[in-house]
Amino acid sequence: MSDLVSYIRNVPDFPKKGIVFRDITTLLKEPEAFKKAVATFYEKYDGAKIDKIIGVESRGFILGAALALRLGVGFVPIRKKGKLPAETVREEYSLEYGKDSIEIHRDALKQGERVLIHDDLLATGGTMAAACKLVKQVGGTVVGLCFLVELNFLKGRDRLEGYDVFSLIQYDKE
Amino acid sequence: MSDLVSYIRNVPDFPKKGIVFRDITTLLKEPEAFKKAVATFYEKYDGAKIDKIIGVESRGFILGAALALRLGVGFVPIRKKGKLPAETVREEYSLEYGKDSIEIHRDALKQGERVLIHDDLLATGGTMAAACKLVKQVGGTVVGLCFLVELNFLKGRDRLEGYDVFSLIQYDKE
Repeated sequence: MSDLVSYIRNVPDFPKKGIVFRDITTLLKEPEAFKKAVATFYEKYDGAKIDKIIGVESRGFILGAALALRLGVGFVPIRKKGKLPAETVREEYSLEYGKDSIEIHRDALKQGERVLIHDDLLATGGTMAAACKLVKQVGGTVVGLCFLVELNFLKGRDRLEGYDVFSLIQYDKE
Repeated sequence: MSDLVSYIRNVPDFPKKGIVFRDITTLLKEPEAFKKAVATFYEKYDGAKIDKIIGVESRGFILGAALALRLGVGFVPIRKKGKLPAETVREEYSLEYGKDSIEIHRDALKQGERVLIHDDLLATGGTMAAACKLVKQVGGTVVGLCFLVELNFLKGRDRLEGYDVFSLIQYDKE
């Protein structure tokens, strides 16, 4: 496991009792760790002919945008319902209790553009599966999915079968 | 005015009738425009001895994080109430109808750290005034405030008197 893990803060009982929250803000605020995370993604995707980075609201915007700058490509946000101003495509996904939905602008991508989708956390994979559907609906090709943190025990990878999934920090148990 | 303005999409009647929304997603997705926005901020703040970039949720995360990478400094998020997992400091601010509040982690900064705060849009300045208070409360020194878009006619600058305010794109009327 990457030594980036040492920068993560473990916050017990957030957002609710029994959950250990993996807080990435303690990594992002340290220049060396922030830079290393971006550089590790860069090494993986440099040469992969990426056209756009897509970041999933809102923590996915942070390393997603920094990586877009590093790769010299554009950045596209996927946002929660109702936040994007122009015409959108929407996907629903299940939460522990109930549903939520995310959107992308219908004209965010050109036909066939090669896209890397980033989010900070891979948990059950529900949000990212919905994000992949959105990208396809607007004509993009998903080249890879990248995360800062992956919670292996939630088996999000199984839900994202067929995609190239890459994460910098993994946790085997809660 | 910068030619970056040509990348902004004007969306009438969003989020409500009579408002022209200045959509920055059409700028962010173009590599040259995205890079130029970051480079222009970089030229302004290189040499200003910035220790941290603070981005305001959630669009402020995008260029804020890219600029942090470019300057080689850490990134700190200011988020809506209830999103940050560890101990926070909170500030309320007024909206057109009602109030909202934002938070920062109490340990986000070291005493005396020099901070640049970024948000995508300067409108009335209420959110940014609250962000400045948060930074002071956790021991930071505000070196500057930077925005991609400024709506001059809402006079947000007046509310931020005493701070160095910098924006890349200005609109004189709605």
